[in-house]
Amino acid sequence: MDILDHFALQPAGRRIEDLETPVPIIDVDIVERNLKRWQQRCDAASFANRPHIKTHKLAGLAKYQMDLGARGITVQKLGEAEAMADAGIEDMLLTFNVIGRHKLERLAALARRTAIAVVADNATVVEGLGQAGQSAGRNISVLVECDTGAARNGVQSPQAAADLARLITQTAGMTYGGLMTYPKAGTRQETAVFLDEARDLIARGGLETKVVTTGGTPDMWKDDGLAHVTEYRAGTYIYNDRSLVGRGLCQPSECAVHVLVTVVSRPTGDRAIIDAGSKALTSDLLGQTGYGSIREADDAIVREVSEEHGHVDLAGISRKPSVGDVVRVLPNHVCPVSNLFDRVVLVRGSEVLGAVRVDARGAVQ
Amino acid sequence: MDILDHFALQPAGRRIEDLETPVPIIDVDIVERNLKRWQQRCDAASFANRPHIKTHKLAGLAKYQMDLGARGITVQKLGEAEAMADAGIEDMLLTFNVIGRHKLERLAALARRTAIAVVADNATVVEGLGQAGQSAGRNISVLVECDTGAARNGVQSPQAAADLARLITQTAGMTYGGLMTYPKAGTRQETAVFLDEARDLIARGGLETKVVTTGGTPDMWKDDGLAHVTEYRAGTYIYNDRSLVGRGLCQPSECAVHVLVTVVSRPTGDRAIIDAGSKALTSDLLGQTGYGSIREADDAIVREVSEEHGHVDLAGISRKPSVGDVVRVLPNHVCPVSNLFDRVVLVRGSEVLGAVRVDARGAVQ
Repeated sequence: MDILDHFALQPAGRRIEDLETPVPIIDVDIVERNLKRWQQRCDAASFANRPHIKTHKLAGLAKYQMDLGARGITVQKLGEAEAMADAGIEDMLLTFNVIGRHKLERLAALARRTAIAVVADNATVVEGLGQAGQSAGRNISVLVECDTGAARNGVQSPQAAADLARLITQTAGMTYGGLMTYPKAGTRQETAVFLDEARDLIARGGLETKVVTTGGTPDMWKDDGLAHVTEYRAGTYIYNDRSLVGRGLCQPSECAVHVLVTVVSRPTGDRAIIDAGSKALTSDLLGQTGYGSIREADDAIVREVSEEHGHVDLAGISRKPSVGDVVRVLPNHVCPVSNLFDRVVLVRGSEVLGAVRVDARGAVQ
Repeated sequence: MDILDHFALQPAGRRIEDLETPVPIIDVDIVERNLKRWQQRCDAASFANRPHIKTHKLAGLAKYQMDLGARGITVQKLGEAEAMADAGIEDMLLTFNVIGRHKLERLAALARRTAIAVVADNATVVEGLGQAGQSAGRNISVLVECDTGAARNGVQSPQAAADLARLITQTAGMTYGGLMTYPKAGTRQETAVFLDEARDLIARGGLETKVVTTGGTPDMWKDDGLAHVTEYRAGTYIYNDRSLVGRGLCQPSECAVHVLVTVVSRPTGDRAIIDAGSKALTSDLLGQTGYGSIREADDAIVREVSEEHGHVDLAGISRKPSVGDVVRVLPNHVCPVSNLFDRVVLVRGSEVLGAVRVDARGAVQ
């Protein structure tokens, strides 16, 4: 399958310079290389690839990830799951506690038409998921989320994981689906110790843990601590971004997404203002200086953002852009950028392929 | 007019606790008080009120602001202007340089159906605006944007303002509309000196400056430096937010918008996780500690945000929420929050009035 086969492209002009800004442009050649390289690694290591689509929110890219060999996809909220289900994707893991009447009704509706699996880290969530499974008329697979160091969601000990696994087996409307963690970067060994102990405790209770799923782009190429992992969830690797370049985890040439912007003002010799601020680039810093860098201006830094203005520092920059120039910003964190646009443009190098609608844009809950 | 007269409310349940989260809830009583208080001040001081709708992006609230006496509205991009024009608002000032073929065509289309005025701070932008005016068949009012200290857009000196005003009068398709600045907070006197000098220079060239427009919520109640200001543009004052409370500029009781969230996990005694992260609250800090505070939990701070998780620090908090509890987060910066949701819910105290679509949600360019 070609990456473009899953997209109904809308006309968007021929040259990048002719596009209306601000708009994210996605180089499909780079996407393809990033995806194939990781799928080969998963195949070689014999764990399943379950990419997180929160990064791109595009059904076409999710389907292409499946074409290349992904077992299924990961989603972070029901709105994403619904958009992907509407596009025909059935194998999904929702890595967020689903709770509340409205959300449980939506989960039940999804469970009737897909093989959606979910996670839980507490008894209240398990109780609700059981109601959703019974309402759907099928057992929903529920994985136990473990806090192996990231200090976010998750049970706090292997014993607590075993206790919750048992509660899941005792609750109508669900089956025990395995162990899930989103680990803190750089703690692969500690994470393995937690998960191995939880798995052993659960096995001693007579229950098999078929899935052990971990994730995260920063550590994805590390070899240690993966012995018992059956599945890996990475999101950002499809696009990469300035924060990953800054951490030495990828090259600029591996970054697939830039936000195309126009220079709208050059108030001083050292200042350019672009038409992208925090409502296009977000305020995410992720340890970086500034909010992005401009490719065509010797990586000049977007030093400040207002809501709709980006303030570019041109001090010491020799290639200074002029008013009206259309240039590319490499954003710090690409995932929330996808969340801000209704439409993105697919390109191949300098060739514009067409625009596509962002299926699961973030306004959906 | 009642504030609700401009809204087609959609059913959203009766009790706040029954709403699906995350969702912004807007207390219309507080909105009404905030708006009336400022309009009275503008009327007393005899300058025009031209509220910035980028904060709320709701045509219904823009119309209510006009009902109360606003001269017109301020918008920050064409997508906002188009949404407001579609709702029947004709008097708009777009305080952003419009540039590029697509955007100038859209501006011309808007100029055919509204009295939209725009700004410019350089000759390239003036040239394009002239083409748009000629294409629209009417002279567009163009104000000169002055950088009076905020180091964003704007001409750098009163003389440069006078030069650009003259260029505007010499360019077909436009008329000179006056002087505009978005000042740095706390520089009201310096701003007045710049604008007065520019106005005098322009007058010496035989040109009258009928409009001198300034803005900003933080300084809006200050009396100094307003002698020659004819118009004030404030945005955030309609809602207020945590950053304004933190700066001592308003009381918590004057904050009209909270993001309603659900506690989805209580992994430890001192940690709650809510279903709102950077994709609901944004990463804007604006000098605050954390990303928001929770009303029902003694103002516990949202210490960290992942994309869909908010990490609430409950250390030292006596009223600790439980899994499933629906609570209110006061966001640091309310403007970009409006940008992230398709739908908001209007309330009056604890009474749910209904949901409304966000007309100019930020995905529009």
